[in-house]
Amino acid sequence: MSVNDCFRLYSGKKVLITGGLGMIGSSVAHVLHEFGAEVVLFDSVSDVYGANMFNVNSIKDDVEIIVGDIRDNCKVQEVIRDKDYIFNFAAQVCHNDSIEDPFYDAEVNYFGHLNVLENVRKFNPAAVVVHSGSRLQYGKIEAIPVAESHPLRPETPYALNKTAAENMYRFYNSVHGIKTIMLRIANPYGPRGQMKHSKYCIVNWFIRQAMENKDITIFGDGAQVRDYIFIDDLVRGIISLCLKPEAAGNIFNIGSGHGSEFRKMVEYVVDAVGSGSIKNVPWPDSYINVETGDYVSDISKIRQTIDWNPDISLRDGVIKTVEYYMANKEYYW
Amino acid sequence: MSVNDCFRLYSGKKVLITGGLGMIGSSVAHVLHEFGAEVVLFDSVSDVYGANMFNVNSIKDDVEIIVGDIRDNCKVQEVIRDKDYIFNFAAQVCHNDSIEDPFYDAEVNYFGHLNVLENVRKFNPAAVVVHSGSRLQYGKIEAIPVAESHPLRPETPYALNKTAAENMYRFYNSVHGIKTIMLRIANPYGPRGQMKHSKYCIVNWFIRQAMENKDITIFGDGAQVRDYIFIDDLVRGIISLCLKPEAAGNIFNIGSGHGSEFRKMVEYVVDAVGSGSIKNVPWPDSYINVETGDYVSDISKIRQTIDWNPDISLRDGVIKTVEYYMANKEYYW
Repeated sequence: MSVNDCFRLYSGKKVLITGGLGMIGSSVAHVLHEFGAEVVLFDSVSDVYGANMFNVNSIKDDVEIIVGDIRDNCKVQEVIRDKDYIFNFAAQVCHNDSIEDPFYDAEVNYFGHLNVLENVRKFNPAAVVVHSGSRLQYGKIEAIPVAESHPLRPETPYALNKTAAENMYRFYNSVHGIKTIMLRIANPYGPRGQMKHSKYCIVNWFIRQAMENKDITIFGDGAQVRDYIFIDDLVRGIISLCLKPEAAGNIFNIGSGHGSEFRKMVEYVVDAVGSGSIKNVPWPDSYINVETGDYVSDISKIRQTIDWNPDISLRDGVIKTVEYYMANKEYYW
Repeated sequence: MSVNDCFRLYSGKKVLITGGLGMIGSSVAHVLHEFGAEVVLFDSVSDVYGANMFNVNSIKDDVEIIVGDIRDNCKVQEVIRDKDYIFNFAAQVCHNDSIEDPFYDAEVNYFGHLNVLENVRKFNPAAVVVHSGSRLQYGKIEAIPVAESHPLRPETPYALNKTAAENMYRFYNSVHGIKTIMLRIANPYGPRGQMKHSKYCIVNWFIRQAMENKDITIFGDGAQVRDYIFIDDLVRGIISLCLKPEAAGNIFNIGSGHGSEFRKMVEYVVDAVGSGSIKNVPWPDSYINVETGDYVSDISKIRQTIDWNPDISLRDGVIKTVEYYMANKEYYW
């Protein structure tokens, strides 16, 4: 079955996307809507974390948009009913912010998701429920590429709350039989990401810096390796995976599977934009404490489960992203 | 330095014990008081979880007892100030209850401890702060004995909240420099444990059953191996460890280091009490789902750090426990 045939399985399905106005949520929404799903977006519209109505501008009359917080028991109870698929992208997404305010991070990234799970167990136990975890859950990396069996030594409240939530999703599968799928996502970038600050989605932020002809700051020598995954590749992977019954109860890395040096990424950005310049500065303490070392996802497990190849190169992905923001700057700045 | 000389280092020290009226907390309190510490007990006095005023009867005029909940920010802020040592035994302690009510478990076992840690960071960053985790954090056991490096695959909300809290204690050490010490305790038993239900502290519960000449239920063939540690051994280990500066930031198993078959433990109980009988029944589903397999602590790490030998055999520990409850039955039934 080709990817397109496979995606048609979503036709007529009822889908809930929490964090539905953010980069990943809205991008999933576009594809599922295209393939005939009935899409409900649930979002607290906290623009710090990337909610942007423009992200769903072209589909806003065809999807339902509900403003709400995953910590709100009543609202969650209402929106999870009757859904076939529940994609949870609602999150506090900045690991440095989580150090400043570990309570808020825990409330959203752990309690909020526990709230979703308890309501699913009580009111919709047949749904497929997806958790978006992070490569940061691994903490200090022993060797790359990193498989799902790598020890988890989360270094920040963000990473440890993501881990706690993942454990809870796993528990709801193993004990309550809920069809949960747990993702550990590498560094996503691309259209529909927020462009207002550098707290996360650093590729996007650098694109803005370059578009404004500013200095782009590299900590240290910029040789640290990251796994940047273009949003379209990420979305195809997630959507394919959730159609596989055997994915339930499993944890999957999802990344490009390729390592790129940080400075290389910055060079692609400056090249694609045609302005901006590179400035090297020492690592700030607050970052070095939580720096985890080189990271590349081992994506063999997900590729054994679905026919999926994240084939958009970092250079091409950056070019596509720059084109998007050149055309839509006014909605993101 | 002998253990007694070493314990004198607590003389004049200000100590806070959360969950101070429970089995472990009150037993730590007795020893620290004996060696001259100024002890404050903080307890929510939820008798479901073992709080019992009789546990501190002989020292109650010499220690300060404050009724409060570790989730209460104002009270915690008050009691953590000026303390040299903060022992955190406050907990929801039943892993089966945590399946029924994962929110309550998360609030106490994770949020409550995060509340302690944030207040320590802000108002008393020099304190030594101890977390009492559980062997259940390991989940399904690969091979015994189990070292601290064994993967953590917590199977219940109880175990995963203990893990989340442990990660947070570790984070407060690595990023904020707080002297946190993380314990993973095997199966403790002995005097001062609650005797009202079978939710936890199963050795104690069986002693009550035998004292009432009832059937003692063994699930399956009773061949499952556990590591039962007598409260006096446990307390000496914890108290010694906290005097070692090199313990800060580290995780330690604490158990007897010996495996005993479950049915053997029951036989010791019946022998020591002189009444009661053994009844084998099949495993109930709610237990088998969270059964983790044989468990024995590898205690090499703690024994490399302190001069400590948990030398009270299971048979002797059971006898001592039976003697205690024979003498003090009225305060525990």
